[in-house]
Amino acid sequence: MDLPIALDSHLSQPLHTQLYEALRQAILTGRLPPSQRIPSTRSLAQSLGISRTTVTQSYEQLLSEGYLQAIVGSGTYVCAQLPDDLLCSTQVELNTKQDPVPVKLSQQGTRLTKALSSLSSEPKSVISFRYGRPALKDFPIDLWRRLLSRYCTAGSDWLDYASDFRGYFPLREAIARYVARARAVQCDPEQIIITNGTQQALDIVMRLLIDPGDAIAIEDPGYLSARRVFLSYGADLRPIPVDESGLRVEFLCNGKNKNGEKKIRLVYVTPSHQFPTGSTLSLPRRLELLAWAQQNNALILEDDYDSEYRYGDRPIPALQGLDRNHAVIYISTFSKVLFPSLRIGYLVVPSHLVVPFTQAKWLSDRQLPTLEQQVLTEFIADGHLECHIRKMRSRYDQRRQVLVQALKTHFGDRVRVLGEKAGLHIMVRINIDLDEEEIIRRAANDGIGLMSARPCYLNSSCNSSLDSSCNPETNPDLMAKRSCEFVFGYSELDELQIQVGINRLAKALEL
Amino acid sequence: MDLPIALDSHLSQPLHTQLYEALRQAILTGRLPPSQRIPSTRSLAQSLGISRTTVTQSYEQLLSEGYLQAIVGSGTYVCAQLPDDLLCSTQVELNTKQDPVPVKLSQQGTRLTKALSSLSSEPKSVISFRYGRPALKDFPIDLWRRLLSRYCTAGSDWLDYASDFRGYFPLREAIARYVARARAVQCDPEQIIITNGTQQALDIVMRLLIDPGDAIAIEDPGYLSARRVFLSYGADLRPIPVDESGLRVEFLCNGKNKNGEKKIRLVYVTPSHQFPTGSTLSLPRRLELLAWAQQNNALILEDDYDSEYRYGDRPIPALQGLDRNHAVIYISTFSKVLFPSLRIGYLVVPSHLVVPFTQAKWLSDRQLPTLEQQVLTEFIADGHLECHIRKMRSRYDQRRQVLVQALKTHFGDRVRVLGEKAGLHIMVRINIDLDEEEIIRRAANDGIGLMSARPCYLNSSCNSSLDSSCNPETNPDLMAKRSCEFVFGYSELDELQIQVGINRLAKALEL
Repeated sequence: MDLPIALDSHLSQPLHTQLYEALRQAILTGRLPPSQRIPSTRSLAQSLGISRTTVTQSYEQLLSEGYLQAIVGSGTYVCAQLPDDLLCSTQVELNTKQDPVPVKLSQQGTRLTKALSSLSSEPKSVISFRYGRPALKDFPIDLWRRLLSRYCTAGSDWLDYASDFRGYFPLREAIARYVARARAVQCDPEQIIITNGTQQALDIVMRLLIDPGDAIAIEDPGYLSARRVFLSYGADLRPIPVDESGLRVEFLCNGKNKNGEKKIRLVYVTPSHQFPTGSTLSLPRRLELLAWAQQNNALILEDDYDSEYRYGDRPIPALQGLDRNHAVIYISTFSKVLFPSLRIGYLVVPSHLVVPFTQAKWLSDRQLPTLEQQVLTEFIADGHLECHIRKMRSRYDQRRQVLVQALKTHFGDRVRVLGEKAGLHIMVRINIDLDEEEIIRRAANDGIGLMSARPCYLNSSCNSSLDSSCNPETNPDLMAKRSCEFVFGYSELDELQIQVGINRLAKALEL
Repeated sequence: MDLPIALDSHLSQPLHTQLYEALRQAILTGRLPPSQRIPSTRSLAQSLGISRTTVTQSYEQLLSEGYLQAIVGSGTYVCAQLPDDLLCSTQVELNTKQDPVPVKLSQQGTRLTKALSSLSSEPKSVISFRYGRPALKDFPIDLWRRLLSRYCTAGSDWLDYASDFRGYFPLREAIARYVARARAVQCDPEQIIITNGTQQALDIVMRLLIDPGDAIAIEDPGYLSARRVFLSYGADLRPIPVDESGLRVEFLCNGKNKNGEKKIRLVYVTPSHQFPTGSTLSLPRRLELLAWAQQNNALILEDDYDSEYRYGDRPIPALQGLDRNHAVIYISTFSKVLFPSLRIGYLVVPSHLVVPFTQAKWLSDRQLPTLEQQVLTEFIADGHLECHIRKMRSRYDQRRQVLVQALKTHFGDRVRVLGEKAGLHIMVRINIDLDEEEIIRRAANDGIGLMSARPCYLNSSCNSSLDSSCNPETNPDLMAKRSCEFVFGYSELDELQIQVGINRLAKALEL
């Protein structure tokens, strides 16, 4: 056997490792074929001019790993069990791989890819009125870094999981106090489960409570990311219209149950700032919804996003705090108040659901990083959170006013602004002689990013629930009429950018 | 109407807010009942000695929030729509709440709670031989803190999501280079999806590929946390025995398919260090498994945990790198190498599965914190990861030797040690005249934490697959025989603790 093996005693790699590697490569590339007898340790040592111990070491490793086999009284051979056609695999480039094993996605996988088929990164714009993100420039980075350094030290427990599966206990205590104060949520830290933002909270609720075909009532228009999660679990979505007081509870129609439809198990609402219309669920509607849930043994999933930002009047207490029947699962997040990549949100669940929710979180991905939980705990407990919210509320308020004023100045009565009393976005209905695609296209050409409200509608042929003219019963020529609704986020832009943006938009639309 | 309202002009809260709050409380507590007419703004202003504008402001807010309603030509009333029985809810203590709305868990929820029914925090021990966690004392905390401070700065993009849904691109590049070098994994950064550790990677694989009733072949004994995820998705588990060369591939029996059983869709393996037996899947077995997967259109889920720690011989290349049929989904994590609460793992998926995996991660919980991804990127790219692994490998090697030696010294031939060539634990079979529960109880009494290997077995009546005497065909009195197997983690203990621990254990067992 003539095997070119080059060993170099000047390398840091020991000789026996070099020899091991050379032989292994020869086997894997087929230069040493299966069942090939290889030289005895003595003869190979002689031919390479190295010690027999070195060769023995290499052979032993190859034997232990199954590349070689020893046959007593005969010698050492390349393992015969190696299937020929796989031998040269480590040398094969990716593009010469065979056809992949065909993969059938699960039902959930299929639903999920369908629900997310339109998922794409947003286009770059000079001035983008995108929504759902706080003003990152105003985040107190130096303070956050100091807190990170304070907790990222020896002797701390930040390297390990929190001892409670639900998350770091002091954080859950701080959250319980905060939501009691700010949102009149009534809960014990035991009922709080820390999640990776709202998205995971929604996923866990679906996992635990929804089987394919189960009915979920949703606001229409509503929050697209929630709808996608619901669809991925095969939920039967029942769209309920919204008006300036939020969800129109009278349209929840479990009483009828025509065609043997399943009863609604869960109602998903965004009561603080209905997404995208921006209306607030009024107190009578809240009480009506809670009564309906009790009568129908349904649960309420309260996504309290944007509750921190209310301009003018005081916030209405959360549904959770008004509930007497343990029917509300409350969701909130710090991503929209602090920064998106923080990934800390929480669930407040009724006491009798704490165990399955804890188990579901643990099974999903264990826990969140402890360090961030510790930093956030101090950030809340020392009052930085509420201070930051106060500061940002006044800043966002100014931006909101500038945006509304600029729209009125440039568009006059061709725009209608909705939902400006709260949150980080407004909904704007534009009535001009251009269709939606054309408006977005012209805006984009001038570097202005606009977001249509259309994807928020379950049935996008009617996207104007706040307008009675959109009711097909009263307005039969609805399908011919197109109204253009946009969601204008203003949190990331300063006043000048907003003014320039709307000015440029008006010019692009030739107003 | 005589309503005690106390306003204080010295408070920072404006008078109209104080009045609003007082009226709101009166309505919510029932002191102002539904349909009660309230004073005119003029008369209330007079009686309280404040301006009429102040009263009007308060009334308007209460009107807008639905607490009050105005009837034209008549006056202002407490809203009649407030159901009586809910009015005092904000005053109600938690313990007087009504019975909760009955909640039926979903099928997945039910399976999940069943799979996790035994989940509990581990008991505190003075010396615990628990496993699966690195030595936190040896983690380079100062370096990590410096990197955190470096990236946690203004002008950085750490506050926002990474622009790629799969995770921070430079991290995926660094991982692709690392796994190519260390594990012979052949992949492009495009195939890498960052996950919250192995747990979430397993969850995403199940979500996308497994419907209830689908068959998954698992190692028996095997990794309990993986099994729990599989069970929560309703998988039909097919236990395959393992021996000192890992999974016994010849037991994968899709050829037979007796009783119209479903074909195996997925084989879950821990080839670097089979959990818990510690054996390494030999090269011939690897090639055999890959060939079997190709013939049977099955996928292989390679959980390459503990691949970093191999004592003596070199690691065998990952299945992923030997595969030519895009049949391997590769999972690994940094939690076991760096620290548990880091929560960064990754999936390497075949190119044609990248899209659904990206979507599933996004829908589960969006992304991981960007800051940690940036820090880890530099930690890998600057060589700190491999340096740390080298340092720890020699440290763990010493601990492992001390543990094996101590067991031999104190237990002699009453112990058999398995799987000591790799990883952070060994499996130990103890043959003494005590049953498992008694051994654990006595150890715990002396402050020694022991972990039974029993939960790793699918059918815990037979927990000795490495022992041919456990085969019911050759050993019919198996059920009467009890063998005691334990998993001994040694990574968190120093040499002295290990020696003291085993010494104390031997005394507790009266050897």
